[in-house]
Amino acid sequence: MRSFLFGCFVFLFAGSLAAQSDSVFIRKIADEIFHNSTAYSNLYTLTKTIGQRLSGSPSTYTSEKWAQEVVKKAGADNVYLQKATIPHWVRGGKDQAVLITGKNRQSLEVIALGNSVSTPTGGLTAPMILIKDFDELERRKDEIKGKIVFYNHPFNVDFVWTFQAYSEAVPYRVFGASRAAKYGAVGTVVRSMSESTDNFPHTGAMIYNDSFPKIPTLAVGLQDADKMVAAVTSKSDLKESQAGLSLFISTNAQALPDTIGYNVIGEWRGSEFPDQYITVGGHLDSWDPAEGAHDDGAGCVQSIEVLRALKATGYKPKHTIRVVLFTDEENGGRGAKAYSAEAKTKNEKHIFALESDGGGFTPRGFSFKGTESQIASVKHWLPLLVPYGVTEFNSGRAGADVEPLNEATGAMASELIPDSQRYFDIHHSAGDVFEKVNKRELELGAINMAALIYLTDKYGL
Amino acid sequence: MRSFLFGCFVFLFAGSLAAQSDSVFIRKIADEIFHNSTAYSNLYTLTKTIGQRLSGSPSTYTSEKWAQEVVKKAGADNVYLQKATIPHWVRGGKDQAVLITGKNRQSLEVIALGNSVSTPTGGLTAPMILIKDFDELERRKDEIKGKIVFYNHPFNVDFVWTFQAYSEAVPYRVFGASRAAKYGAVGTVVRSMSESTDNFPHTGAMIYNDSFPKIPTLAVGLQDADKMVAAVTSKSDLKESQAGLSLFISTNAQALPDTIGYNVIGEWRGSEFPDQYITVGGHLDSWDPAEGAHDDGAGCVQSIEVLRALKATGYKPKHTIRVVLFTDEENGGRGAKAYSAEAKTKNEKHIFALESDGGGFTPRGFSFKGTESQIASVKHWLPLLVPYGVTEFNSGRAGADVEPLNEATGAMASELIPDSQRYFDIHHSAGDVFEKVNKRELELGAINMAALIYLTDKYGL
Repeated sequence: MRSFLFGCFVFLFAGSLAAQSDSVFIRKIADEIFHNSTAYSNLYTLTKTIGQRLSGSPSTYTSEKWAQEVVKKAGADNVYLQKATIPHWVRGGKDQAVLITGKNRQSLEVIALGNSVSTPTGGLTAPMILIKDFDELERRKDEIKGKIVFYNHPFNVDFVWTFQAYSEAVPYRVFGASRAAKYGAVGTVVRSMSESTDNFPHTGAMIYNDSFPKIPTLAVGLQDADKMVAAVTSKSDLKESQAGLSLFISTNAQALPDTIGYNVIGEWRGSEFPDQYITVGGHLDSWDPAEGAHDDGAGCVQSIEVLRALKATGYKPKHTIRVVLFTDEENGGRGAKAYSAEAKTKNEKHIFALESDGGGFTPRGFSFKGTESQIASVKHWLPLLVPYGVTEFNSGRAGADVEPLNEATGAMASELIPDSQRYFDIHHSAGDVFEKVNKRELELGAINMAALIYLTDKYGL
Repeated sequence: MRSFLFGCFVFLFAGSLAAQSDSVFIRKIADEIFHNSTAYSNLYTLTKTIGQRLSGSPSTYTSEKWAQEVVKKAGADNVYLQKATIPHWVRGGKDQAVLITGKNRQSLEVIALGNSVSTPTGGLTAPMILIKDFDELERRKDEIKGKIVFYNHPFNVDFVWTFQAYSEAVPYRVFGASRAAKYGAVGTVVRSMSESTDNFPHTGAMIYNDSFPKIPTLAVGLQDADKMVAAVTSKSDLKESQAGLSLFISTNAQALPDTIGYNVIGEWRGSEFPDQYITVGGHLDSWDPAEGAHDDGAGCVQSIEVLRALKATGYKPKHTIRVVLFTDEENGGRGAKAYSAEAKTKNEKHIFALESDGGGFTPRGFSFKGTESQIASVKHWLPLLVPYGVTEFNSGRAGADVEPLNEATGAMASELIPDSQRYFDIHHSAGDVFEKVNKRELELGAINMAALIYLTDKYGL
């Protein structure tokens, strides 16, 4: 990812009249949000009244109903639903695992990965083999048959931006099961995608390769993962020690037939270019162990707040601003696909699409995906955001819910970059609850998002 | 405060050989800290085994003993204690308050402010008067006699840097009692210095003006403060409604005679200029309701980590580096005074003094207090810290424990600036516990501090 940090632009830009009036207006946005924001109270309702919102679960529909009301109340001229066919995977109760060392039995904190198949009724016991990475899997492919592969690939703590560590480790969650099934494994357990100090297991999507048997796959909490490693490495001869170690795993997970979900879309009509669109959004769905507060209740309530606050300042948008609360980001991205497909089919003109899906933490920057000319248009705005904590503009990527629109329509896509240090402590785990969100950090994100939407609407791209 | 953000320096500096080798060495520091840091485990011991460390309390001495061992273990050539005469104020049990509205009694979450006198045995009941600010106090001075003044001066939420809001509100905590006593008040209750969403009361130092009677003074949690305001403003005629409202307050607080505390100092001798000093520190004391995790356990363990990590990299300092864990920052700053006084008496040559006392949150910058020439020496280092989240250098102030040294010796003083959004949620309250500190945020702070100490040692000032 290329980074164009806050550089000389400040000196070129700071003196212009445009910058002064923009600076004043952004301060007005900030005052409105700091004093009257509904983001935090909306997040409370979404997380504490509705709770988890796994694709296809009953509370997903409750959340869509709630979202329509809240987006309308925030000032949308019209609110409507956009249909998407979504996966319907269910967990089916509590997932379990036990580490068996000779006569010792140790319960492990585990959670089945999204899309995992179930174990046979009563669970499954098999010898465990510890595998660090896919290279080791290939080297030891003859030892895999009939075993449960335990992928222990820790986050690389050296990456300051924690999403880099996630990108490096997440293939073990997504592809590990089929890679192991190819060599006859009967199940996999993966070290959670986290660097937290607690023991919560972290779920997330996995994908089967249809060429191989579908085997159950679970994630384990980090403290328990370390115990599993210790059980292996405490013996001097790895192979012998592994021969004496087994795992019991049990999950009732299953994929039901696809069902229907909805993107919730609120429009605020533009005064000059009502047929040109600026999108701001987050995803309404979440994984099921927690409340989906940071991921991505935060992005939803921030996007709604952008509309509410801009409207409250008396601003009249030139383009039509759409708040889009996407369905099914977590388990297939079907909401984003439906949105971009309809935009393409209808030949809609999209200017810009912004999402927030990195948690409701203190903002540090934005990342943009667009043409060089689009990126050149925004980079001199950075000094306007510096007073609100955004000091970095990156280019090269945006978020999962807006990149498809960029590809389908050429609209520049962007994502808020909050500070990433705490994100993977709670991501997809029981730790992702309302109490972990700080009101002011959430609001600062909304302020920067509203400022960016204002600038793109005012100046175009 | 003047701010010189990351600007054009990056282009001037990035190409030099010095910058390249510095960048490589700072990466080495980061790797060392991310992989082997003891900051988080040290903080666990300090907060969970030792706990609160109010000046003069028994656990202060336990913490000084612990600190000597830990600083020695981190690699100091010698560790010693520096004596300071410190206040010895004791809380004497649980503080209480009740809002009395006609026949209704409502318990309030309160805590006596540091240095407050006690109420008479059995507590004190008096009519309450709601005062927003000192202007209103002066206007209504004739109504104050015999009453308990409730100062309700909320944080100004518009300040992005929350310390600005604190600076504006804190005079009501520090000087409010004597200002009210001047007009005959019998007690004061102050809205806590916070913008949290919970109801914890926040203590902190207050100072009596000896010209007026010393009256007891407490802080109240924000939710209860809002209830107290509502009890007044729910009536149409303020004066009449206030006449019907009383407060009961009770505290056994008292100031005992001054006692002795110690700065814990660890020295790592310089190879070229052993008689020239670079200081890095935090304060070991804390207020008593909590564990002093962010304030300032974090700064202590980060400072110790600077020594441990630089030593682990094989670095040989030119100047003598001192880790100083100050006593009594919270209740008088006597440790800092003792340190700067001795430096002056002994005519020590001090180059630089850095502290961390803004919490163990994700780092965003440093603030410097020094001459123009000193500040000019450091500003081109900023690009070296940008990869680790520090994007801003400010000038004009440093922290409470290093400014006296700047004044006494002319050494440039500096303070780490962590993100400030969460700080006043927990500051001086029961919420300041180990669980609120994120391991990686704490370590990133230590990395930037170690990098700055390395650069000042290598290049001088």
